Amino acid sequence: MVDTAALAPAIRRANSKALEILLQGDPVLIDVVPAKDLIPELKEHTILHAGPPIEWDRMCGPMRGAVAGVAVFEGWARDLDEAGVQASKGCFDFHPNHHFSAVGPMTGLTTCSQPLLVVENRAAGNRAYCTVNEGLGKVMRFGGNDESVRDRLAWIRDSLGPALGSALQCCGGIPLRPLVARGLTMGDEMHQRNVACSSLLLRELAPALASAVADHSDLSEMLAFMGSNDQFFLNIAMAMGKSIMDPVRNIEQSTVVTAMTRNGTDFGIRISGLGDEWFTAPVEMPAGLYFPGFSAADANPDMGDSTIVETIGLGGFAMAAAPAVAGFVGAGSVAEAAGITARMREITLGEHPEWTIVSENYQGVPTGIDIRLVVETGIVPTINTGIAHREPGIGQVGAGVVKAPMACFEKALRALGERLGIS
Amino acid sequence: MVDTAALAPAIRRANSKALEILLQGDPVLIDVVPAKDLIPELKEHTILHAGPPIEWDRMCGPMRGAVAGVAVFEGWARDLDEAGVQASKGCFDFHPNHHFSAVGPMTGLTTCSQPLLVVENRAAGNRAYCTVNEGLGKVMRFGGNDESVRDRLAWIRDSLGPALGSALQCCGGIPLRPLVARGLTMGDEMHQRNVACSSLLLRELAPALASAVADHSDLSEMLAFMGSNDQFFLNIAMAMGKSIMDPVRNIEQSTVVTAMTRNGTDFGIRISGLGDEWFTAPVEMPAGLYFPGFSAADANPDMGDSTIVETIGLGGFAMAAAPAVAGFVGAGSVAEAAGITARMREITLGEHPEWTIVSENYQGVPTGIDIRLVVETGIVPTINTGIAHREPGIGQVGAGVVKAPMACFEKALRALGERLGIS
Repeated sequence: MVDTAALAPAIRRANSKALEILLQGDPVLIDVVPAKDLIPELKEHTILHAGPPIEWDRMCGPMRGAVAGVAVFEGWARDLDEAGVQASKGCFDFHPNHHFSAVGPMTGLTTCSQPLLVVENRAAGNRAYCTVNEGLGKVMRFGGNDESVRDRLAWIRDSLGPALGSALQCCGGIPLRPLVARGLTMGDEMHQRNVACSSLLLRELAPALASAVADHSDLSEMLAFMGSNDQFFLNIAMAMGKSIMDPVRNIEQSTVVTAMTRNGTDFGIRISGLGDEWFTAPVEMPAGLYFPGFSAADANPDMGDSTIVETIGLGGFAMAAAPAVAGFVGAGSVAEAAGITARMREITLGEHPEWTIVSENYQGVPTGIDIRLVVETGIVPTINTGIAHREPGIGQVGAGVVKAPMACFEKALRALGERLGIS
Repeated sequence: MVDTAALAPAIRRANSKALEILLQGDPVLIDVVPAKDLIPELKEHTILHAGPPIEWDRMCGPMRGAVAGVAVFEGWARDLDEAGVQASKGCFDFHPNHHFSAVGPMTGLTTCSQPLLVVENRAAGNRAYCTVNEGLGKVMRFGGNDESVRDRLAWIRDSLGPALGSALQCCGGIPLRPLVARGLTMGDEMHQRNVACSSLLLRELAPALASAVADHSDLSEMLAFMGSNDQFFLNIAMAMGKSIMDPVRNIEQSTVVTAMTRNGTDFGIRISGLGDEWFTAPVEMPAGLYFPGFSAADANPDMGDSTIVETIGLGGFAMAAAPAVAGFVGAGSVAEAAGITARMREITLGEHPEWTIVSENYQGVPTGIDIRLVVETGIVPTINTGIAHREPGIGQVGAGVVKAPMACFEKALRALGERLGIS
């Protein structure tokens, strides 16, 4: 629909540069810091959310539930009902995490007092942020908002976050590129399977944590919380993805995707050649497996900034490295997992030199999505995802696979064509 | 050479029973206790070693080095020279670990003051023991014996061992069957690759360890020691293997292998139908890869009780689950790793129902070696192994693959034939 052939050499050069920056990314987890100290714009009543921009009236159930919960957590409302009334009256300022070097899983709410993981990309010098993973089930990122959810967030704010920050400062940070390389050899794809990286991170951080936390019972509680959460690493992988992709933005004529994300209503992408513009389409429903007692009728459409990990070649793109996750997300057998990675190779520009897949004789994961290839082949990115209940206050009900909507890629390509005068 | 056809139904019944006991094994790591409190026979000057019975005059270099080192460590000799003189004068009583419900890696020395891991097989009620892993390089199990080696053993005896014991008592023990199942999905084969199980164990044990150790700097040191040793789990896997196989002994007419082990000079096996009798042959040289600065000319022949893990279907038998280890031990590509597991299926009676290989669509690891199948097919067990320097005092120089000598299996089959009156 847009003939980019005339500009092919220029686009190739631009994409070459984009891929080089992407593959040189050197992310290091360096600190955990309260959000308000990292993002000055995060005042009272400001709420960052997952996905492209959205206002209260179009927000899905779990995001509304999380908004009400976080307003009570921050002390802006006395209870969930009052928070809902405030939201509907426009008392809160909503912005995407992506506008502030941040990402958040599922509803992905970021507010002033929450501690954020800080990942520094030492190749490019930038930093990116993400909240600390809350665990599974009834948690705020899946729309949970009751007292137990808010108490856990308070414990993360008051105890775990500061302890992780001290431990990371003490040990000088944890380089993530080699950690992820190792995790891939251990069956993680860093989206719906993070057991290896969560374990490797814990064992690397535990000695410093033991020095940082004075009270033995506090320390034991923190080690148990991190150690019983196989998805603890997800939020770190997300901040890592954001830190790697942000420097890839704003390369004139590049057709490389720099962000994919969803807010439960819209799916949005950004491409390098068009800076911070969002190209959106209605988000799709995941196809997956449900926890006992739940079914597809309970599911909310796809949600979260977490698909930044697919943008860098992990998650669904690295499914071949993590055949065990294929069963968990209902994607089928080992052969089908390998097939998904093979298809993603058709829409990407390169392979990561260090993030390799043992079962494919150490071939790198497919990295650097080119919107031209997506539109030409008709193959859209496959994303591994968690599934939230569509109503506020309930939480996670399953896990599955979802496809990025083709319309986002078509819109982006059309807009780039217009910009380059070839539409 | 021995026609067992006439007794085939009886042997089949016996092996069926053997396999059932093997597959029902339910090993739980429950404690760490000084050896003298577990094995009353472990008096002063008594040394348990890896492999079938052997005396000083036939011991290989690294085992002699370890004997001298442990004699100084236990205070029986003032220095290594005096220890060597004592050994040559017959001052020490040598016995195999296997005669005392114990196993030890490489030289595998067990003496009175060393703390032993205790694994209880809750299906059969028996217990098995193994020392705590010392790390890699210059360590006693590879023949290292200098002050640094002995100081580390003293720290394990005085600090780490008691702390692990308290932590395990506090958390009620760690079930190993599910841990190993998970480790297999993460690329461990539990012999030369234990990074997943070592990490999973650490994260499970860390909260209790934090409660058990009063001093923060001690705790931090222990977490760092365990966390930086990818082979920490090996010794636990070995005690687990021993606890699973010991109840399989003494089933009349059974041709199932209950132990394979080597002392650096001889390779020995036991089979269920012939109780505690050893069938030995000269041990072979491993074929493998060497650490920088070392070569095959430095290598000692194969050594250690660790091949108890192959006896239960892990190590070389589970190579397909751990393709990354194939490169480490020089066994070749992913396809070759799968081929080794496939060949081991030809000499085993069954598959483990929970220890499965994701890449083989969750087929169980091949378990229960039948000496008849080994002799009939000419396929001997493939073992993943560490390689020690052949001289005392140096330590590990590489890792590789070694084959069990066919003569052991032929001797055992002949002896069984005689016992059953069909030779």
